[in-house]
Amino acid sequence: MLMDEKAFQDYYPDNLSWCYGCGRLNEHGHQIKSFWDARVAVEGGESVCLFQPRPYHTAIPGYVYGGLIASLVDCHGTGTAAAAVYHMQGREMSSLPALRYVTASLQVNFLKPTPLGPPLELRGRAVEIGGTPPGRKVRVVISVSVEGVLCARGEVVAVQVPEDWMV
Amino acid sequence: MLMDEKAFQDYYPDNLSWCYGCGRLNEHGHQIKSFWDARVAVEGGESVCLFQPRPYHTAIPGYVYGGLIASLVDCHGTGTAAAAVYHMQGREMSSLPALRYVTASLQVNFLKPTPLGPPLELRGRAVEIGGTPPGRKVRVVISVSVEGVLCARGEVVAVQVPEDWMV
Repeated sequence: MLMDEKAFQDYYPDNLSWCYGCGRLNEHGHQIKSFWDARVAVEGGESVCLFQPRPYHTAIPGYVYGGLIASLVDCHGTGTAAAAVYHMQGREMSSLPALRYVTASLQVNFLKPTPLGPPLELRGRAVEIGGTPPGRKVRVVISVSVEGVLCARGEVVAVQVPEDWMV
Repeated sequence: MLMDEKAFQDYYPDNLSWCYGCGRLNEHGHQIKSFWDARVAVEGGESVCLFQPRPYHTAIPGYVYGGLIASLVDCHGTGTAAAAVYHMQGREMSSLPALRYVTASLQVNFLKPTPLGPPLELRGRAVEIGGTPPGRKVRVVISVSVEGVLCARGEVVAVQVPEDWMV
Protein backbone atom coordinates (compact mmCIF):
# COMPACT_ATOMS: atom_id res chain seq x y z
CA MET A 1 0.00 0.00 0.00
CA LEU A 2 1.66 3.21 -1.10
CA MET A 3 1.42 6.52 0.64
CA ASP A 4 -1.06 8.66 -1.24
CA GLU A 5 -1.00 12.43 -1.31
CA LYS A 6 -4.77 12.55 -1.48
CA ALA A 7 -6.77 11.75 1.63
CA PHE A 8 -9.50 9.12 1.60
CA GLN A 9 -12.03 11.93 1.87
CA ASP A 10 -10.65 13.64 -1.24
CA TYR A 11 -12.04 10.75 -3.28
CA TYR A 12 -15.60 11.03 -1.97
CA PRO A 13 -18.09 12.06 -4.66
CA ASP A 14 -19.03 15.74 -4.40
CA ASN A 15 -22.61 15.08 -3.30
CA LEU A 16 -21.29 12.98 -0.39
CA SER A 17 -18.68 15.55 0.64
CA TRP A 18 -20.84 17.75 2.84
CA CYS A 19 -20.45 15.82 6.09
CA TYR A 20 -19.73 18.09 9.05
CA GLY A 21 -16.97 15.74 10.17
CA CYS A 22 -15.22 14.85 6.94
CA GLY A 23 -16.78 16.63 3.97
CA ARG A 24 -14.23 18.72 2.13
CA LEU A 25 -17.07 20.99 0.93
CA ASN A 26 -18.48 21.75 4.41
CA GLU A 27 -16.75 24.98 5.33
CA HIS A 28 -18.18 24.90 8.88
CA GLY A 29 -17.03 21.37 9.57
CA HIS A 30 -13.93 19.52 10.73
CA GLN A 31 -12.78 18.44 7.24
CA ILE A 32 -10.72 15.58 8.62
CA LYS A 33 -8.17 13.91 6.36
CA SER A 34 -7.33 10.22 6.64
CA PHE A 35 -4.44 8.38 4.99
CA TRP A 36 -2.85 4.98 5.02
CA ASP A 37 0.36 5.02 7.01
CA ALA A 38 2.83 3.22 4.75
CA ARG A 39 5.28 2.90 7.63
CA VAL A 40 3.03 0.52 9.53
CA ALA A 41 3.28 -2.99 8.13
CA VAL A 42 0.18 -4.71 9.52
CA GLU A 43 -2.23 -6.95 7.66
CA GLY A 44 -4.84 -4.72 6.06
CA GLY A 45 -2.95 -1.54 6.82
CA GLU A 46 -3.28 1.18 9.39
CA SER A 47 -4.89 4.52 8.72
CA VAL A 48 -3.94 7.76 10.36
CA CYS A 49 -5.64 11.10 10.85
CA LEU A 50 -4.18 14.12 12.59
CA PHE A 51 -6.54 16.73 13.90
CA GLN A 52 -5.82 20.02 15.59
CA PRO A 53 -8.58 20.86 18.08
CA ARG A 54 -9.55 24.50 18.47
CA PRO A 55 -9.21 26.15 21.89
CA TYR A 56 -13.00 26.06 22.28
CA HIS A 57 -13.18 22.28 21.74
CA THR A 58 -12.98 21.87 25.47
CA ALA A 59 -14.75 19.75 28.07
CA ILE A 60 -13.30 20.30 31.50
CA PRO A 61 -10.93 23.26 30.91
CA GLY A 62 -7.61 21.98 29.56
CA TYR A 63 -9.05 18.80 28.07
CA VAL A 64 -10.59 17.92 24.74
CA TYR A 65 -14.35 17.65 24.40
CA GLY A 66 -15.39 14.00 24.22
CA GLY A 67 -18.02 14.73 21.60
CA LEU A 68 -15.28 15.96 19.26
CA ILE A 69 -13.32 12.77 19.85
CA ALA A 70 -16.44 10.73 19.09
CA SER A 71 -17.00 12.74 15.90
CA LEU A 72 -13.45 12.17 14.70
CA VAL A 73 -13.64 8.46 15.50
CA ASP A 74 -16.89 8.30 13.54
CA CYS A 75 -15.55 9.89 10.35
CA HIS A 76 -12.09 8.36 10.48
CA GLY A 77 -13.92 5.05 10.93
CA THR A 78 -16.15 5.39 7.88
CA GLY A 79 -13.21 6.65 5.80
CA THR A 80 -11.04 3.74 6.86
CA ALA A 81 -13.88 1.33 6.10
CA ALA A 82 -14.15 2.64 2.54
CA ALA A 83 -10.40 2.59 1.96
CA ALA A 84 -10.12 -0.96 3.32
CA VAL A 85 -12.81 -2.28 0.99
CA TYR A 86 -11.26 -0.59 -2.06
CA HIS A 87 -8.03 -2.27 -1.02
CA MET A 88 -9.70 -5.66 -0.56
CA GLN A 89 -11.21 -5.34 -4.02
CA GLY A 90 -7.84 -4.37 -5.47
CA ARG A 91 -9.28 -1.05 -6.64
CA GLU A 92 -8.00 2.48 -6.64
CA MET A 93 -10.08 4.88 -4.56
CA SER A 94 -10.72 6.93 -7.68
CA SER A 95 -12.38 3.98 -9.43
CA LEU A 96 -16.14 3.57 -9.85
CA PRO A 97 -18.54 2.63 -8.44
CA ALA A 98 -17.69 4.81 -5.46
CA LEU A 99 -17.77 3.20 -2.02
CA ARG A 100 -19.11 5.29 0.81
CA TYR A 101 -20.02 4.27 4.34
CA VAL A 102 -22.27 5.50 7.10
CA THR A 103 -22.10 4.62 10.77
CA ALA A 104 -24.40 1.95 12.18
CA SER A 105 -22.86 2.07 15.64
CA LEU A 106 -20.20 4.06 17.41
CA GLN A 107 -18.50 3.21 20.69
CA VAL A 108 -15.88 5.30 22.46
CA ASN A 109 -14.10 4.48 25.69
CA PHE A 110 -12.45 7.50 27.23
CA LEU A 111 -9.40 6.07 28.98
CA LYS A 112 -8.01 9.28 30.35
CA PRO A 113 -8.58 13.02 29.98
CA THR A 114 -7.23 14.11 26.58
CA PRO A 115 -5.04 17.20 26.90
CA LEU A 116 -6.15 20.14 24.76
CA GLY A 117 -3.30 21.68 22.78
CA PRO A 118 -1.31 19.26 20.62
CA PRO A 119 -2.86 17.52 17.59
CA LEU A 120 -4.88 14.37 18.16
CA GLU A 121 -3.60 11.30 16.35
CA LEU A 122 -6.23 8.76 15.33
CA ARG A 123 -5.14 5.36 14.05
CA GLY A 124 -7.60 2.93 12.53
CA ARG A 125 -7.68 -0.69 11.45
CA ALA A 126 -10.46 -2.47 9.64
CA VAL A 127 -10.61 -5.60 11.78
CA GLU A 128 -13.62 -7.20 10.12
CA ILE A 129 -14.93 -6.87 6.59
CA GLY A 130 -18.24 -8.66 6.30
CA GLY A 131 -21.82 -8.34 5.13
CA THR A 132 -23.44 -9.48 1.93
CA PRO A 133 -21.89 -8.91 -0.52
CA PRO A 134 -18.55 -8.84 1.37
CA GLY A 135 -17.59 -5.28 2.18
CA ARG A 136 -21.10 -4.08 2.91
CA LYS A 137 -20.29 -3.96 6.63
CA VAL A 138 -16.92 -3.11 8.14
CA ARG A 139 -15.79 -2.97 11.75
CA VAL A 140 -13.01 -0.49 12.42
CA VAL A 141 -11.10 -0.05 15.68
CA ILE A 142 -9.48 3.28 16.36
CA SER A 143 -7.03 4.63 18.90
CA VAL A 144 -6.83 8.28 19.85
CA SER A 145 -3.50 9.52 21.19
CA VAL A 146 -1.88 12.80 22.09
CA GLU A 147 1.90 12.99 21.92
CA GLY A 148 2.11 9.21 22.04
CA VAL A 149 -0.21 8.77 25.02
CA LEU A 150 -3.31 6.68 24.34
CA CYS A 151 -6.35 8.63 25.56
CA ALA A 152 -9.35 6.89 23.98
CA ARG A 153 -10.32 3.81 22.03
CA GLY A 154 -13.19 3.69 19.60
CA GLU A 155 -15.02 1.26 17.41
CA VAL A 156 -17.20 1.97 14.41
CA VAL A 157 -19.46 -0.42 12.57
CA ALA A 158 -19.80 1.12 9.13
CA VAL A 159 -22.29 0.06 6.47
CA GLN A 160 -22.09 0.81 2.81
CA VAL A 161 -24.29 3.58 1.45
CA PRO A 162 -26.58 2.12 -1.24
CA GLU A 163 -25.53 3.27 -4.68
CA ASP A 164 -28.88 4.95 -5.30
CA TRP A 165 -28.16 7.36 -2.41
CA MET A 166 -25.21 8.68 -4.31
CA VAL A 167 -26.91 9.85 -7.49
CA MET B 1 -40.03 15.89 40.71
CA LEU B 2 -41.13 19.37 39.75
CA MET B 3 -40.53 21.07 36.45
CA ASP B 4 -37.67 23.49 36.86
CA GLU B 5 -37.19 26.62 34.81
CA LYS B 6 -33.43 26.26 35.03
CA ALA B 7 -31.71 23.56 32.99
CA PHE B 8 -29.40 21.05 34.63
CA GLN B 9 -26.50 22.82 32.93
CA ASP B 10 -27.47 26.16 34.46
CA TYR B 11 -26.43 24.76 37.84
CA TYR B 12 -22.92 23.75 36.77
CA PRO B 13 -20.18 25.73 38.52
CA ASP B 14 -18.74 28.45 36.25
CA ASN B 15 -15.34 26.76 35.87
CA LEU B 16 -17.09 23.60 34.61
CA SER B 17 -19.35 25.47 32.20
CA TRP B 18 -16.99 25.70 29.22
CA CYS B 19 -17.81 22.35 27.63
CA TYR B 20 -18.33 22.62 23.88
CA GLY B 21 -21.44 20.48 24.17
CA CYS B 22 -23.16 21.83 27.25
CA GLY B 23 -21.23 24.73 28.74
CA ARG B 24 -23.35 27.86 28.96
CA LEU B 25 -20.16 29.94 28.81
CA ASN B 26 -18.82 28.41 25.57
CA GLU B 27 -20.09 30.74 22.91
CA HIS B 28 -18.87 28.46 20.11
CA GLY B 29 -20.55 25.36 21.48
CA HIS B 30 -23.94 23.66 21.43
CA GLN B 31 -25.05 24.93 24.86
CA ILE B 32 -27.59 22.14 25.25
CA LYS B 33 -30.24 22.43 27.94
CA SER B 34 -31.61 19.40 29.76
CA PHE B 35 -34.66 19.27 32.03
CA TRP B 36 -36.73 16.72 33.85
CA ASP B 37 -39.99 16.10 32.06
CA ALA B 38 -42.56 16.26 34.84
CA ARG B 39 -45.19 14.75 32.53
CA VAL B 40 -43.41 11.41 32.43
CA ALA B 41 -44.09 9.40 35.55
CA VAL B 42 -41.36 6.77 35.54
CA GLU B 43 -39.20 5.66 38.45
CA GLY B 44 -36.22 8.00 38.61
CA GLY B 45 -37.66 10.41 36.08
CA GLU B 46 -37.05 11.11 32.43
CA SER B 47 -34.94 13.97 31.17
CA VAL B 48 -35.49 15.79 27.93
CA CYS B 49 -33.35 17.99 25.71
CA LEU B 50 -34.44 19.66 22.52
CA PHE B 51 -31.78 20.69 20.05
CA GLN B 52 -32.10 22.51 16.78
CA PRO B 53 -29.34 21.37 14.38
CA ARG B 54 -27.89 23.96 12.04
CA PRO B 55 -28.12 23.43 8.28
CA TYR B 56 -24.42 22.56 8.17
CA HIS B 57 -24.78 19.78 10.78
CA THR B 58 -25.20 17.37 7.93
CA ALA B 59 -23.86 13.93 7.08
CA ILE B 60 -25.37 12.64 3.87
CA PRO B 61 -27.26 15.71 2.59
CA GLY B 62 -30.67 15.92 4.25
CA TYR B 63 -29.64 13.98 7.34
CA VAL B 64 -28.10 14.92 10.67
CA TYR B 65 -24.40 14.35 11.25
CA GLY B 66 -23.89 11.33 13.53
CA GLY B 67 -21.07 13.04 15.38
CA LEU B 68 -23.49 15.75 16.48
CA ILE B 69 -25.92 13.12 17.72
CA ALA B 70 -23.09 11.44 19.65
CA SER B 71 -22.12 14.80 21.16
CA LEU B 72 -25.65 15.53 22.30
CA VAL B 73 -26.03 12.03 23.75
CA ASP B 74 -22.76 12.54 25.61
CA CYS B 75 -23.70 15.83 27.26
CA HIS B 76 -27.37 15.03 27.88
CA GLY B 77 -26.05 11.83 29.46
CA THR B 78 -23.65 13.50 31.89
CA GLY B 79 -26.28 16.13 32.74
CA THR B 80 -28.91 13.49 33.43
CA ALA B 81 -26.40 11.54 35.55
CA ALA B 82 -25.78 14.59 37.73
CA ALA B 83 -29.47 15.43 38.07
CA ALA B 84 -30.32 11.81 38.95
CA VAL B 85 -27.75 11.69 41.75
CA TYR B 86 -28.90 15.00 43.22
CA HIS B 87 -32.40 13.54 43.17
CA MET B 88 -31.26 10.27 44.79
CA GLN B 89 -29.56 12.27 47.53
CA GLY B 90 -32.68 14.37 48.03
CA ARG B 91 -30.73 17.52 47.18
CA GLU B 92 -31.48 20.58 45.12
CA MET B 93 -29.17 21.03 42.14
CA SER B 94 -28.10 24.37 43.58
CA SER B 95 -26.80 22.71 46.77
CA LEU B 96 -23.14 22.06 47.52
CA PRO B 97 -20.95 20.16 46.99
CA ALA B 98 -21.61 20.38 43.24
CA LEU B 99 -21.94 17.11 41.35
CA ARG B 100 -20.43 17.00 37.87
CA TYR B 101 -19.83 14.03 35.60
CA VAL B 102 -17.55 13.14 32.74
CA THR B 103 -18.02 10.36 30.22
CA ALA B 104 -16.21 7.08 30.67
CA SER B 105 -17.87 5.46 27.68
CA LEU B 106 -20.29 6.43 24.98
CA GLN B 107 -22.26 4.13 22.69
CA VAL B 108 -24.62 5.21 19.93
CA ASN B 109 -26.64 2.98 17.66
CA PHE B 110 -27.90 4.80 14.60
CA LEU B 111 -31.19 3.08 13.84
CA LYS B 112 -32.15 5.13 10.82
CA PRO B 113 -31.03 8.27 9.04
CA THR B 114 -32.05 11.28 11.15
CA PRO B 115 -33.79 13.93 9.04
CA LEU B 116 -32.17 17.36 9.19
CA GLY B 117 -34.65 20.16 9.80
CA PRO B 118 -36.87 19.70 12.86
CA PRO B 119 -35.48 19.78 16.41
CA LEU B 120 -33.95 16.61 17.81
CA GLU B 121 -35.59 15.32 20.99
CA LEU B 122 -33.31 13.47 23.39
CA ARG B 123 -34.82 11.59 26.32
CA GLY B 124 -32.67 10.12 29.06
CA ARG B 125 -33.08 7.79 32.00
CA ALA B 126 -30.50 6.96 34.65
CA VAL B 127 -30.92 3.18 34.66
CA GLU B 128 -28.11 2.38 37.08
CA ILE B 129 -26.60 4.47 39.85
CA GLY B 130 -23.56 2.70 41.25
CA GLY B 131 -19.92 3.10 42.17
CA THR B 132 -18.34 3.74 45.53
CA PRO B 133 -19.67 5.83 47.15
CA PRO B 134 -23.06 5.30 45.43
CA GLY B 135 -23.53 7.86 42.69
CA ARG B 136 -19.94 7.93 41.56
CA LYS B 137 -20.88 6.03 38.40
CA VAL B 138 -24.16 6.35 36.52
CA ARG B 139 -25.42 4.59 33.42
CA VAL B 140 -27.84 6.63 31.34
CA VAL B 141 -29.79 5.41 28.32
CA ILE B 142 -30.95 7.96 25.80
CA SER B 143 -33.30 7.98 22.84
CA VAL B 144 -33.00 10.43 19.96
CA SER B 145 -36.17 11.16 18.01
CA VAL B 146 -37.32 13.54 15.34
CA GLU B 147 -41.03 14.34 15.20
CA GLY B 148 -41.79 11.24 17.25
CA VAL B 149 -39.70 8.86 15.15
CA LEU B 150 -36.92 7.10 17.02
CA CYS B 151 -33.68 7.54 15.04
CA ALA B 152 -30.89 6.59 17.48
CA ARG B 153 -30.31 5.05 20.86
CA GLY B 154 -27.38 5.93 23.07
CA GLU B 155 -25.82 4.92 26.33
CA VAL B 156 -23.43 6.88 28.49
CA VAL B 157 -21.45 5.64 31.48
CA ALA B 158 -20.73 8.80 33.43
CA VAL B 159 -18.31 9.10 36.34
CA GLN B 160 -18.23 11.80 38.92
CA VAL B 161 -15.59 14.50 38.58
CA PRO B 162 -13.42 14.49 41.71
CA GLU B 163 -14.11 17.52 43.87
CA ASP B 164 -10.53 18.75 43.56
CA TRP B 165 -11.02 19.18 39.79
CA MET B 166 -13.65 21.76 40.46
CA VAL B 167 -11.66 24.27 42.45
